[in-house]
Amino acid sequence: MSLLETTISEIRKELDPAALAAAKDRLRNQAKPPGSLGVMEDISARLAAIKGTLDVRLTHKRIVTCAGDHGVVEEGVSLFPAEVTPQMVLNFAGGGASVNVIAKHAGAEVKAADIGVNYDFDPALPIFHKKVRHGTANFTKEPAMTRNEAIRSIEAGIEIVAELEAESPVDLLGTGDMGIGNTTPSTAVIAAFSGLPVEKLTGRGTGIDDAALANKIAVIQKGLDLHMPDPKDPLDILSKVGGLEIGALAGLVLGAASRGIPVICDGLISTAGALIACELAPAAKNYLFVSHQSVEIGHKYMHDRLGLSPLIDLNFRLGEGTGAAVCMELLDLSTRILADIKTFEEVGVTNID
Amino acid sequence: MSLLETTISEIRKELDPAALAAAKDRLRNQAKPPGSLGVMEDISARLAAIKGTLDVRLTHKRIVTCAGDHGVVEEGVSLFPAEVTPQMVLNFAGGGASVNVIAKHAGAEVKAADIGVNYDFDPALPIFHKKVRHGTANFTKEPAMTRNEAIRSIEAGIEIVAELEAESPVDLLGTGDMGIGNTTPSTAVIAAFSGLPVEKLTGRGTGIDDAALANKIAVIQKGLDLHMPDPKDPLDILSKVGGLEIGALAGLVLGAASRGIPVICDGLISTAGALIACELAPAAKNYLFVSHQSVEIGHKYMHDRLGLSPLIDLNFRLGEGTGAAVCMELLDLSTRILADIKTFEEVGVTNID
Repeated sequence: MSLLETTISEIRKELDPAALAAAKDRLRNQAKPPGSLGVMEDISARLAAIKGTLDVRLTHKRIVTCAGDHGVVEEGVSLFPAEVTPQMVLNFAGGGASVNVIAKHAGAEVKAADIGVNYDFDPALPIFHKKVRHGTANFTKEPAMTRNEAIRSIEAGIEIVAELEAESPVDLLGTGDMGIGNTTPSTAVIAAFSGLPVEKLTGRGTGIDDAALANKIAVIQKGLDLHMPDPKDPLDILSKVGGLEIGALAGLVLGAASRGIPVICDGLISTAGALIACELAPAAKNYLFVSHQSVEIGHKYMHDRLGLSPLIDLNFRLGEGTGAAVCMELLDLSTRILADIKTFEEVGVTNID
Repeated sequence: MSLLETTISEIRKELDPAALAAAKDRLRNQAKPPGSLGVMEDISARLAAIKGTLDVRLTHKRIVTCAGDHGVVEEGVSLFPAEVTPQMVLNFAGGGASVNVIAKHAGAEVKAADIGVNYDFDPALPIFHKKVRHGTANFTKEPAMTRNEAIRSIEAGIEIVAELEAESPVDLLGTGDMGIGNTTPSTAVIAAFSGLPVEKLTGRGTGIDDAALANKIAVIQKGLDLHMPDPKDPLDILSKVGGLEIGALAGLVLGAASRGIPVICDGLISTAGALIACELAPAAKNYLFVSHQSVEIGHKYMHDRLGLSPLIDLNFRLGEGTGAAVCMELLDLSTRILADIKTFEEVGVTNID
C-alpha cells in the first residue's frame, strides 16, 4: 500500500465511547445549568473522546503553514504578486508574521512548509522542505499537476506530522496556508465537489475589485470546463484545479487523524484541504475542528458539507493559520472546563430537583 | 456632588486621537492584506486609543461577579431555588465555579461581590461586602428597591473599582453576575428602555419550559404595568424593575470608564447593567466591550442600542462573567496583533502597488 492508503487505513472509525459518555455525564453534573457553556462543552467532550481521558492536556501545540505557488496567478486573479509567497515563507521563519504573533499568544509553535513554492530556499532555512514542484501549472491551460504529484503533495503533509511527532508529542495540530492566488484553486475545488455555480462561491481573496472578481469567476469556470474534474474523485479534483499546499493541508488532517491527534483547520484554503481529506477518509472528521468563518463565501458551504461549525467569526480573511491559532486557545480552554469546573456534589450547591 | 455624579463627570468625552490614528496607520502597513484580521484590528485600535500607546499591556485582569437576590423569584420565574445565589457566591470564593476556571485560563483574577444577597456572609469571606439590602422586593407588588438604594447599588460598583485599583493597577476589567431569577429584572429593564413587547425580549433563563416562559412574560408585564418606569430615567427603571447586582454592574462600567480602564461585559445581566451605565453617561461606551452573544433574546437588542458587536457566539447562557473571561484572551491577543506583527517595510515583503 502507498503511504496515503496506509494512513487512511489507520484512522480509527470511532472515538472512545466510554470517555465520551463519562465526559457528558460530568458536564451534566457540574454546578451550572445543563449545557450553559454551549459549544465549549461539545468540544470538550469530543476532545475527551479523542484522547480517552477527561483531563485532556493540550500542552504541545503545533501549526504548520503550507506554502505553494499557482500558475493561474498569470490570469490576474490576485492583488499581490507571486513573489510574496516566498517572501512570506521567510517572514514565517523569521517569526514576524501574523500567524507567529497569534500562535505565540496561544502557546503554539509555527513551522512553515514548502510544498510547491516557485523559489529555491536555502536548505538550512528552518522550514519543512517538501517541494513537489515549483508551483502548479495554469489550470486554464493544463491540469494544475499530475495525479502522482497530487498524491505526493498529500503525502508531504502526512510525512510532516510524522516528523513533528518524531521531535516531540503533538497534542493539537493547526493547519494554515500561504500561496498568492490560492483562493482561486480552493474555490475551484469547492465548485468541483459541489457542482454549485462558481459565482455563488467566489470571494474577493485579499481584496480584489468588481472587475477582477468577474475575471476570477471566469478563470475558475474555464478551468472546470476544460478539465471536468470528477466530483467523486478527490485526487482528480486536486490534480486538475487544486494546489500543492492544498494537497499537503489534506495530508496534515489525514496524518493527524491516523495518529489520534485533534486537528484544527484555518480558513478557506485549509478547509479545502480538510474537505479533500474527509472525502478520502470520512472518519478523519472525528478529529477535525474548524476554526473560523472566513469572509470568503465558499467557506460556509464546506462547513455545511463537513457538518462542522466554526468557533469564531471575526471577519478574518488572511489564512496562514491565524484563525486556527486563535481557536487553539478555545480548545485548550474547553479541556479545563470539563476537567476543572466542580460538580454540584463537589461544591454543595443545590441542583434542580 | 454625589459619588455617582462625580464619577460620571470624570469620564473623558473622547479617546486619544493621536494614538488611534497611529494604530490605524500601523495596522494598514503590516505585512498582510489591509483589514484582514477583521474585528481584532478594530479592537486593538480602540484599546490603543484608550491607553494612549500602541504597545498596550493587559497584564492585570480582574473580573468582578456581582450577586443579588430577587423578590420576584417567588412568582416562579426560575428553575433554581434562591438558596443557590449564596451557595454560588461561596463557590466563586472557593475557586471551583465556571468563571474561576475560565478566568484562570485567561490569566484573570475573580472576586465576587455581595450587593444584595439574601444571606449574611461571614465578614472574613474574601468577597466585596457591599450589601445594599437582602434582595429586592417582588416587583409585581412593589418597586424592586427605592431610588436611593438604586443609587447606592451603582455606587457600590464604583467603589469596587476604586478598591481594586488600590490593591494593584487594573488593565482590564470584566463584569459578571450571579442572582437566581435575574434574567427577569434584566428583561424588564430592556423592555422599559425600549418599549418593545415583553414577549419579543424574554428568554428561558437557565432553561424553563413553555408554561414557565409564559408566566415569566406575564410577571414582567405586570411589573411594568404597575410601576410604569420612565424610559428616559435609568434610575427610575433600575429602582422599579431592576436588581441590586444590575446596579453594581452599571457602577463597574462607570467606575472603569472614569479611570480609563477598558471594561468587558458578560451576558444578558451584565449588559443590562452596562446599558444603564451608558444611558447615564454615553461617553462610558468608549471604554466598553461586549463579549458574547447570549442565547437570551433580549441581548441582541441591547448590543444594537449600545452600537457594539459581541466577539463570540458560543451559545453561552450562564453569566458569572464566563463570556467576559473568554473574551479577555481575545482583547489581550489584539494588543499583540497591533504591537508585534511586522510591517511590509520591517520584513521586506512586497506590498500592493
